[in-house]
Formats: sequence, C-alpha cells, structure tokens
Amino acid sequence: MKLSKKDILGMKELSRDEVTLILDTAESFLEVSMRKIKKVPTLRGKTVINFFVEASTRTRTSFEIAGKRLSADTVNISASTSSLVKGETLTDTAKTLEAMNPDIIVIRHGAAGAPHMLARMIKQSVINAGDGAHEHPTQALLDMLTIRQEKGVIGGLTIAIIGDIAHSRVARSNIIGLTMMGARVTVCGPAMMIPRDIEKLGVHVSHHMEEAVSDADIIMMLRIQLERQNESFFPSDREYSRYYCLDRATIERAKPDVLVMHPGPINRGIEISPEIADGTQSLILKQVTNGVAVRMALLYLLAGGEE
Amino acid sequence: MKLSKKDILGMKELSRDEVTLILDTAESFLEVSMRKIKKVPTLRGKTVINFFVEASTRTRTSFEIAGKRLSADTVNISASTSSLVKGETLTDTAKTLEAMNPDIIVIRHGAAGAPHMLARMIKQSVINAGDGAHEHPTQALLDMLTIRQEKGVIGGLTIAIIGDIAHSRVARSNIIGLTMMGARVTVCGPAMMIPRDIEKLGVHVSHHMEEAVSDADIIMMLRIQLERQNESFFPSDREYSRYYCLDRATIERAKPDVLVMHPGPINRGIEISPEIADGTQSLILKQVTNGVAVRMALLYLLAGGEE
Amino acid sequence: MKLSKKDILGMKELSRDEVTLILDTAESFLEVSMRKIKKVPTLRGKTVINFFVEASTRTRTSFEIAGKRLSADTVNISASTSSLVKGETLTDTAKTLEAMNPDIIVIRHGAAGAPHMLARMIKQSVINAGDGAHEHPTQALLDMLTIRQEKGVIGGLTIAIIGDIAHSRVARSNIIGLTMMGARVTVCGPAMMIPRDIEKLGVHVSHHMEEAVSDADIIMMLRIQLERQNESFFPSDREYSRYYCLDRATIERAKPDVLVMHPGPINRGIEISPEIADGTQSLILKQVTNGVAVRMALLYLLAGGEE
Repeated sequence: MKLSKKDILGMKELSRDEVTLILDTAESFLEVSMRKIKKVPTLRGKTVINFFVEASTRTRTSFEIAGKRLSADTVNISASTSSLVKGETLTDTAKTLEAMNPDIIVIRHGAAGAPHMLARMIKQSVINAGDGAHEHPTQALLDMLTIRQEKGVIGGLTIAIIGDIAHSRVARSNIIGLTMMGARVTVCGPAMMIPRDIEKLGVHVSHHMEEAVSDADIIMMLRIQLERQNESFFPSDREYSRYYCLDRATIERAKPDVLVMHPGPINRGIEISPEIADGTQSLILKQVTNGVAVRMALLYLLAGGEE
Repeated sequence: MKLSKKDILGMKELSRDEVTLILDTAESFLEVSMRKIKKVPTLRGKTVINFFVEASTRTRTSFEIAGKRLSADTVNISASTSSLVKGETLTDTAKTLEAMNPDIIVIRHGAAGAPHMLARMIKQSVINAGDGAHEHPTQALLDMLTIRQEKGVIGGLTIAIIGDIAHSRVARSNIIGLTMMGARVTVCGPAMMIPRDIEKLGVHVSHHMEEAVSDADIIMMLRIQLERQNESFFPSDREYSRYYCLDRATIERAKPDVLVMHPGPINRGIEISPEIADGTQSLILKQVTNGVAVRMALLYLLAGGEE
Repeated sequence: MKLSKKDILGMKELSRDEVTLILDTAESFLEVSMRKIKKVPTLRGKTVINFFVEASTRTRTSFEIAGKRLSADTVNISASTSSLVKGETLTDTAKTLEAMNPDIIVIRHGAAGAPHMLARMIKQSVINAGDGAHEHPTQALLDMLTIRQEKGVIGGLTIAIIGDIAHSRVARSNIIGLTMMGARVTVCGPAMMIPRDIEKLGVHVSHHMEEAVSDADIIMMLRIQLERQNESFFPSDREYSRYYCLDRATIERAKPDVLVMHPGPINRGIEISPEIADGTQSLILKQVTNGVAVRMALLYLLAGGEE
C-alpha cells in the first residue's frame, strides 16, 4: 500500500488506514537503527530541509538522524539564521526553498497553520514538526506506535492525558489520533487548562487526577511550559505539582499494568516524579527511539514510497 | 575547457571566456536538480567549508545543497560559533581552516576584501559569497545565467539596475559582469545612492525610474536594506517607494517583453509591488533555482574540474 | 591491537599502550586527509553526535571533518538550540540522545566531569572534547602526535608548559599524558596561575620563563583567556605579556632546535609574538592538521575498530 498524500500536516488530515500504514512502516524501520550499519540507500539523492523557526533539539535531531539513516541529504535552517529576520515573509521563504528543489520540507513554527500554508504554496512535501498550539502529528504517531507495541492494540484502550490540554499540540494531535483509532481518551488538568467544548472531540474530562488515572491503560503526561508562568492563568509550580504531578501515590490508584508516557523534555518533580519517570512503567525513552523510526517512515512514504 | 583559477573572488577577476565556461557548466548541472536522484558523485571525498561571518539563509543553503548534490562533505561555520568571537584574527582562522585540508572555503564577510585576503593566505580555493559592499560574484553569475536562458544572449541587451547602487555588492558585480559581456547597463536611484564616478564603470545613470526602464530588456531591482534606515542619507520607506518601487504603472512604461529580477529577500511593497514580484514577467524564483546550478558549477570547476 | 575502552574521557584513564595505539592509528589516518579523495568508508552507517554545550569552532569542525572523512553521519547539537535551555537536566538529554541510537557522542561542557557522567549513563561511546578546567584529552593526544612526529620520541624530552596552568584543561591533560610517556614537564606562569601541589603530578615548577625554557625541547604556550580578566587574580594583558609572552628574546635563551606549540586560538602579542607564532619553529598549524587525524583515529577505534 502507498500513502496517497503530499503532506503530513496533522492527525486531522489522516485516515485510520493511513495511520496504520505509517505505524507498520515505522515498525519495519525500527530494525535499521539497531543494526551495526544503520543506513539504507532508500532516499539517496533526495534533499530534506529541516526548517525550524521555533527552537528544538530533540525533534530536529530526530528528523536529521532519520534522514541520514535513509541516505537523504539533510539541510538545517533555524530561525536565527533565516531570512525571516530580514523581514521576509514566510510565503517568500517558502517559494525560495521550493525553487532549490528539495523533496521534503520539515517545518516547526510558532504560528498554528504555518505548515498548511507552506503545503498549499509549494509542490514539495511538507511535514508539520509542531505548529503553535495546534498539531504535532509526528509526536502523536510515535506515541501511537509506542502504545501499539506495548499493548498490542490501540482500539479499546483507555488513555488519560494530563496537564495543560488547552495549550498543548501534543495533546491535540493525540486526542484526534487516539480517538480515531478507537481508544477512549480522558483529559485532566486545572480548569483553566481545559478548553471549553473539548468534549466535542470525543473525550471525557476530569479535574481530579486520581479519578482520571483510575481506569487508564496509559497515562500520558504533558510538559508544563514553565516559560508561560508569568501568564495570569498559570498556577505556581508548587501548586500545580501538588494536584497534577504523577508520583507513586497517584499511580497506585491506577491499574497495576498502567504505562506512563511523556513527550519530553520532562520537568522532574513538577509534572512527573523522578521515580516514575525512570521507573519500569515509563515508556519515555521508547518514545524517543520510536520517534526516529516514525520519521524515517514518513520521509520514506513521502519521498521514496513509489520506488 | 578548464577554469585556470584557484579562486572566485569577484567578477572583476573573471574574463569573458571564463564567465561563458561557468554559465555553460551551470546549464549542464541544472538538470541534476530536476532528477529523481539529485546527486552525482563528482566531488566525493572533497570538503567544502561554508564560512559565513555574516548571516545568510539563502546563499548558505544554496551552497550547501550544491555541495551535497555533488557528493562533497559540507561543513558550516557561522560567526556566532566561530573563534572570531574569542578574538582570533581572520588570518589565524584562515590558517587553521587551511590546516584541516578542505578543498574549498566559501566565505561571506562584512568586510570588503576579506575573501581576497583569505585567498592569498591559503592554498585551497576560495569563493566569495559576498564581501561588504564590494562584490557578490555568484549572485551576478546566476543573474547572468538567468538572463541568457530567457533572452538567449547577454550582449546587446539593456539592463536597468534600480535601487541603492552605492551600497550594493549585487549591483557592483552585475555591472562589471554585464558590461564585460556586452550589455548596456543603466543604474537608477536617489542621488545619495548613486556613487560619484559610477559612469567610469561604463554605465549610464538615470534618476528617473520611468526613463531608466523605458528601453530596458531586463529590470533588476535591488533590495533596500531597511536595517540601514537610521543612517542620515536614507529616505523613508514611503518616500523611497513613491519614486522607486517597481509597480504596474512603472512597468507599463517599459517594453512589453521586459523581464524583472531581484536577488531577494524582497521587501514587498517597498522596492517591488507584490503584483510584479509574483507576475509572469518575474524571474525571481528562476534566479534561486539557477543559484544552485551556478554554485554546483563553481564547486565542480574549482575542485573537480581536472578529473 | 584493539582499544578495549568504551570512552575517551581523559588522559588519566589511558595507559601508555593505549596512547601509543591511538598515535599509531592517527599516523595512518594522516594520509587520508592528503589524498585527492579524502574519504574512507570505515564508519558508514555510524552516527556521531557532536554535542557542544560550550561554543567552539576548531574542535567541533575538526571532529565533524574527521567523522565525514570516515563516512560517518554527523549531527551537531549546540547549547543554544538544545533542550538544556528548556531546563532539561544533562541526565535527561543524555538518555534522550542514547535512545536515538548514535554510536559516539562527542561532548564539550563547561562543567568538569560532565563527560564522565554521560559515559556512565549511556551505553554508547563518549569522547570528552573539553570539560571545564578538567581535561581535554584529544588536544593532548594531538599535541603528543605532533611532538612524536617532530622529535621521534616523547620519552626523555623536556617540555615547558607556560601560562595559566591552574585553569587550563589543555595543560592538565598534557601534563598527565606527557609524564606518563616519560617526558619531563616544567610548568611556568604567575604564582596565582600555578596550582598548589602541582608537583604531585610529577612536574617541575618555575616562575621565570627564561629558566623554564632554557633546557626545553618543546615550549607549549597556553591561551590566556581574556574573557576571565575581570577576575581579581588576573593580571593585565600588558603585565602578563611583559613576563610570559614568548618572543624572540625569550626563545634565544632556549636550545636552538626548540619547537613551539599552542592549542589556539592564539592571542597575538599577548602570550606569543607574531614572529614566533608564524616562525619556522612553530608547530601550531601541524597541531591542527594532526587534530583531524587523532579524532579520526579515536572515532575509528571506538566505533569501527572491531571490523
């Protein structure tokens, strides 16, 4: 089967079959990163531009390693070095990059919808590596791969997503993807961090963490963005942590086989206790490993799938 | 034919035959970037250092992609990470880079003449990617390739270059190159932006844009450097734009088959109206595409031409 | 022979036989950088991450070129783009990088011991590219390779190391390495820059430069860190230079065949006069060339030595 899409913009744009194809393809690439020679010639002669207008280490590095293991040429552009600082519009930067004939542009941008605009404007494939508080589909896909590996299925599971739901693109992409695959999703956090009408996305809302985790197969913690703390709706670390930190006491209220996820980077002792982050129920590092495989799968399906 | 030069420092150092060789070679590389496998093994095992002391996205990216499509190893060094911040002289940085045995150093530097100094000091090839207000020969070469593609010839054409002629390395390199190839060049801009004695370079001067464009085959707009606006000679955007913005009204005074160029990044609505920048007469994106091909040609002629 | 080590953390962790193996291997790689095709397939499919939390051009570039000439995939991460700025601990960054399955992580870090912590935590190889004022083993190894090339041996030579001994990781790594290989080391500098008890490392101390250089086969100058000048123990440039600058007058007190080294970047006229830095007795640029070879040897011995 083939992915009949030019771009990966969000979970919203993907079907169940497409998600399954991506996860299956990622499974097959997981093995490449375990070899002694971690390289296949699949994308030789293809150019992947990592265009990161918002800073990121882990996502950029993950895409760069994914591209290199597929033998693509990878080029990094970051905000600080980009023409954007000279006042060029995103439109003009996009058309300029297009004219250099890359095959795929991976974009992270602070503005929701920036990847979609890029995708409409250029003929090459675009992958959304995070746009504002909107979507982060490659994170959701790697999370779903991790869940499927550990639990065998996604459909029928109960997933509790805990934290600042309102401002999290990770939450949003996971809610869309997980519900589409048949999981039950409960979101939980302080009232100010739960969007009104979130139930319309098909999720259950809880304001009590112990209730939210009680029947969960997976607890997915979100990163609290400490950089937002001067905003008025934001509680103090201490206050937040008291009610919404995943620690041993909380996890003991959950099922014995519950597993724990976090997109990283983690704030130890704020949204997750070190004991849980490093414990046997934590999938955090598996998520990172799966991230490289999911990104290899997407680069392959978009740029090399036809061969 | 072979390029018997160690370096590409400026249009001033190139002969007519050398320009023709470079443009012919670039034509042959244009096709590589259109292939599914955009890579040839020509420069395998060669090292190209992109040493950008002045920030730039498009030129650095263009050189990096050019190097990678030729299978060279490319290494980027930018000002902020360089030893220059520790007070090392350019001379010492140059000798240090030389000692690592690269094949080509591409340098962009704020000081006119920096690439020439580098070239005198090291045995490897140096390409000037822009030095102060002095020269930007790879831009002029890609402009000339674009003109030759579209008009069949360069000699005999009339080219109007409009904007801040005095501070533009793009203007300077194009004036030298275009007049050498037999084109007639008219420069046009506010009096403070036209260097005294510019006629000595063999160009005609006009202070009225409509007059300048009236017999032009090509109108080459320059980027207004908004960052210089606090300098006293600089008019306001609005004032500049009123007299020197290329819009539909102005272009209607030109020949019907006139074509429009701009080195980018463009300031929409200041030196060029969006309608013209995006219109059918605009060659702006062809220039970008040709930039990769010209840089491939130069890397090839300097580092691999003998094979 | 094979290096039976996972990591290169410091000269302190290496034996005489291991140093000899590394230098012999580096000798054999020197030739690769002199070829027309400067590339061997040895590390194809291996991933090397250059993780530079402290800025550096020459060391990062040297490692990057070394990796590329061995056909490894190289990925650069610098402090400014890293998750560290989001408050992630080094431990979590390390585990994250580990989960992406690189083969070698090269780390430069402002904190002494950071590479050792990294090495304990992850299964992949770690190379210390400089940790605080602690060690800089690849610099010491390239210095030792340079000495051995020029003098035929290391054992039995007298080496004078001059400058801020107390704060120099270059001095520390060289003292450990050179004394282990049987050289006599004299350290010299202002009293405030000589650690108490330094004699315990087996070196002789001198506070007079002319005395220190009088019987030296090699004079190794250290970089004065001008950025530290507002610290109270630091003399002014002028004062320092008067007593500890290596100039012609000083070198005339040394043996006629004495050779001069400096790790760079040099402060001309402060710790070394231009005449000496650029003179026939200077090995400074040979050190840079040898740096690439030593780093190729280390990457090879750690990641590819078994094949």
